Amino acid sequence: MSFQKTEQEFLQYVKKMMNYEEALALMFWDMRTGAPKKGIDQRSEVIGTLSTEVFNMSTSDTMKQFIDELDNEEARQVLSEITVKTLEDCKKEYERNEKIPEVEYKEFVMLQSKAESVWEEAKDKSDFEMFRPYLEKLVEFKKKFIGYWGYEGNKYNTLLDMYEPGVTVEQIDKVFGQLRDEIVPLVERISKSSNQPNTSFLFEHFTQEKQREFCLNALEQMDYDFEAGRLDVTVHPFAITLNPGDVRITTKYDEQDFRTAVFGTIHEGGHALYEQNISKDLVGTPLCDGTSMGIHESQSLFWENFVGRNKGFWKKNYNVLKQYAGGQFDKVELEDYYRAINESKPSLIRIEADELTYPLHIMVRYELEKALFNDEIEVKDLPTLWNDKMEEYLGVRPDNDAQGILQDVHWSGGDFGYFPSYALGYIYAAQFKNAMVKEIANFDELLELGELQPIREWLSSNIHQYGKMKKPLEILNDVTGEGLNAEHLITYLKEKYEAIYQL
Amino acid sequence: MSFQKTEQEFLQYVKKMMNYEEALALMFWDMRTGAPKKGIDQRSEVIGTLSTEVFNMSTSDTMKQFIDELDNEEARQVLSEITVKTLEDCKKEYERNEKIPEVEYKEFVMLQSKAESVWEEAKDKSDFEMFRPYLEKLVEFKKKFIGYWGYEGNKYNTLLDMYEPGVTVEQIDKVFGQLRDEIVPLVERISKSSNQPNTSFLFEHFTQEKQREFCLNALEQMDYDFEAGRLDVTVHPFAITLNPGDVRITTKYDEQDFRTAVFGTIHEGGHALYEQNISKDLVGTPLCDGTSMGIHESQSLFWENFVGRNKGFWKKNYNVLKQYAGGQFDKVELEDYYRAINESKPSLIRIEADELTYPLHIMVRYELEKALFNDEIEVKDLPTLWNDKMEEYLGVRPDNDAQGILQDVHWSGGDFGYFPSYALGYIYAAQFKNAMVKEIANFDELLELGELQPIREWLSSNIHQYGKMKKPLEILNDVTGEGLNAEHLITYLKEKYEAIYQL
Repeated sequence: MSFQKTEQEFLQYVKKMMNYEEALALMFWDMRTGAPKKGIDQRSEVIGTLSTEVFNMSTSDTMKQFIDELDNEEARQVLSEITVKTLEDCKKEYERNEKIPEVEYKEFVMLQSKAESVWEEAKDKSDFEMFRPYLEKLVEFKKKFIGYWGYEGNKYNTLLDMYEPGVTVEQIDKVFGQLRDEIVPLVERISKSSNQPNTSFLFEHFTQEKQREFCLNALEQMDYDFEAGRLDVTVHPFAITLNPGDVRITTKYDEQDFRTAVFGTIHEGGHALYEQNISKDLVGTPLCDGTSMGIHESQSLFWENFVGRNKGFWKKNYNVLKQYAGGQFDKVELEDYYRAINESKPSLIRIEADELTYPLHIMVRYELEKALFNDEIEVKDLPTLWNDKMEEYLGVRPDNDAQGILQDVHWSGGDFGYFPSYALGYIYAAQFKNAMVKEIANFDELLELGELQPIREWLSSNIHQYGKMKKPLEILNDVTGEGLNAEHLITYLKEKYEAIYQL
Repeated sequence: MSFQKTEQEFLQYVKKMMNYEEALALMFWDMRTGAPKKGIDQRSEVIGTLSTEVFNMSTSDTMKQFIDELDNEEARQVLSEITVKTLEDCKKEYERNEKIPEVEYKEFVMLQSKAESVWEEAKDKSDFEMFRPYLEKLVEFKKKFIGYWGYEGNKYNTLLDMYEPGVTVEQIDKVFGQLRDEIVPLVERISKSSNQPNTSFLFEHFTQEKQREFCLNALEQMDYDFEAGRLDVTVHPFAITLNPGDVRITTKYDEQDFRTAVFGTIHEGGHALYEQNISKDLVGTPLCDGTSMGIHESQSLFWENFVGRNKGFWKKNYNVLKQYAGGQFDKVELEDYYRAINESKPSLIRIEADELTYPLHIMVRYELEKALFNDEIEVKDLPTLWNDKMEEYLGVRPDNDAQGILQDVHWSGGDFGYFPSYALGYIYAAQFKNAMVKEIANFDELLELGELQPIREWLSSNIHQYGKMKKPLEILNDVTGEGLNAEHLITYLKEKYEAIYQL
């Protein structure tokens, strides 16, 4: 058969998988935004049927044949670039799945689903011992899988590669170390500062309806396309892509703390802008997706922190906010409002942490995961080690497992190697920002005017459009001319927080 | 292989198809309730992929093998009743599709989709000639298909069988004739009555929000389970089943005419009650569905007309309505309100017709379809024939094609034989009502109290629970001890309208 003919068949095959993925995404969205609860059990079966189908297709003999026929120099002469990269992606997936004995994979999947419900209960009861045997088995499985998959340099690299391809322990150790060396003393100086912001006015009643209106307004400024998306309410906010013409976001509202919805919406909006602006040429391939968890997070954090927590952004938007709020800000100056929403304080829970202390939460997890998969520590010792690290980095120590080792869902799903992406995204974001202001010299002015479209466009043309056509470090280098570099984030944090706390 | 083993495999296979159908239903619902418009093109591809998959499975060699192995006396000895009926259903579908040459089927599907968009434009322009060539081809195709499928007695029977299995032209001619003989003179007498109801107060402003609250209240009285459903807004209202634990309804609101939402919601609610109460044992099989279009319509019409347009129902609910409305009913007596919502007047548009004249609209379509497929008339003559029949039955004549022959979407999709089910449903509903009051002697009292649960339960235990386990006429006979019988509907209409118009 000619390469072109096989290419067409391969693309059709992949498109079918992607179409199934879209149906799955809609079911996921629907279950979280209002599907009637009595339909959930049967719905889970539908999700099971479709995911199994996609998994089977990704590891089928047909897929193997496509790889065998197209993954060679001769074929690459005639294949389109999109096909070559799609094939690369499918091959990686195929090999990853194919190396694991089927029976072990099934056991692992069953363990995952069981472990998640045990974790939920254990967290409710703040009882790590209850969850421990499951976590031990999950770690054991993943270690065995690393054995099958192989590794380079450090065993943990194989896990990192699933979320942040190309980034290694060596690189992360370096940037996380630099960050920690600067943030830890900065956090200490802040806690000793006599110049703490007043935050009392933040917690007054602000109706959900009015918060929603403000959020919609902010999304519009960000150039989120409402003809290609919608905003709904869920317990855990998320952004989800059905296709680039349908990228939905959700948020949650706390009527006693508007920050939850406002910064949450801007954050998810940043994720959504990425996916709305991936090139349409990539639709129907696995390349029509963010290139890594870290680059994705760089987009949400860019908007949440570098835009949403920037003083310039509030020059216009503080007045907008006042129009929607019920008078709580009437006697509060912009400067005091700005300081209040940027209050920094060591705390126990990652998802509630401020932008300065957040990376330290990630480092705690990274250090523990890395040690775990290099057999330097054991699961049973995790709670104490966690608490020790929290004390060392943040100066606070959890009283119980719910506020410590059990707080995150990730491990219960066997997701090890994911956490670093959160902090990497932050580092990337600062690097992107640094590159952006060289080209958009009036960045601050645009924020003050609420004219964010040029910023969105810069991100789209430099990052979004490529989807998975470029690897994370390739994008980083193309945009910034640098590799991973923590300096820009450090400079940003120091300048900002020294000013706010007048250090 | 043992029958039991094949049975299990067969049920698994069918379940997979049904799971795909659920995903399709969700996509359908989502596209109508708020999917972002820029995602629609790609969404259509997903729908195409999944429907093709289901169609292929229903006509596959695997399906043929199941039928060959299980469709015999020996196998039926050991198969469950559900399996036997599922197999019957699958076989019917298999044979129907298998008899049509693949290339003709594809041409027909392409024609359908083209014809629907041409019809839309033709209707806008009120130009039958524009639509005529498409309608001619659609009729030609269906005639050819009847040739492949074969027929008994009358060619039109084969079309009827797709929507109302077991019901024939002979039966319909009889009941429709009886109905027409009674309704046509009754409609004439009404139009001459000097005692017309005053309806002016119906058309005052009634906010969407308050209408929705009333509708939710009515659904709750009907025993619609909100943990297994939800109410949304769409341009064209519908009820849709994802699974019996998730049966959603939609409605539309006209702030100048609350009747649209109120009677529309009760109507769709009636459909939904059917599907919410199908036995859980049938989930995952094609039997978990209404047994025919007519029986389905009997449920919606029962609630809309025999409950919703009943004076008893408004004894309590008129006061409820007044609480939500903005004062428009303050000076209107219950009796006058009741007469107003039951105003009967010949009109041109089927979907806007009242309950008395509605069956006449159906008969016009039935007569024309029957004549068409028996080669007694030609497509080109339809507009004039339509107008003549409207004049004969209803005493009104359309000025143009948009208000006549082009008003319904059905034919543009090649759906011939569907219309009779609307009127059959009405006849069934009256028969069910007649049987019900023999067992629920205090029917009127329950309506007056708004205690509708016993009514819903009676319908569920006599009709809903069986899904497709019983054929329409089998249900009818089991519940009423009769075959198709128009007398009950005739008695109901005569008594009701003679009273309202004091004839």
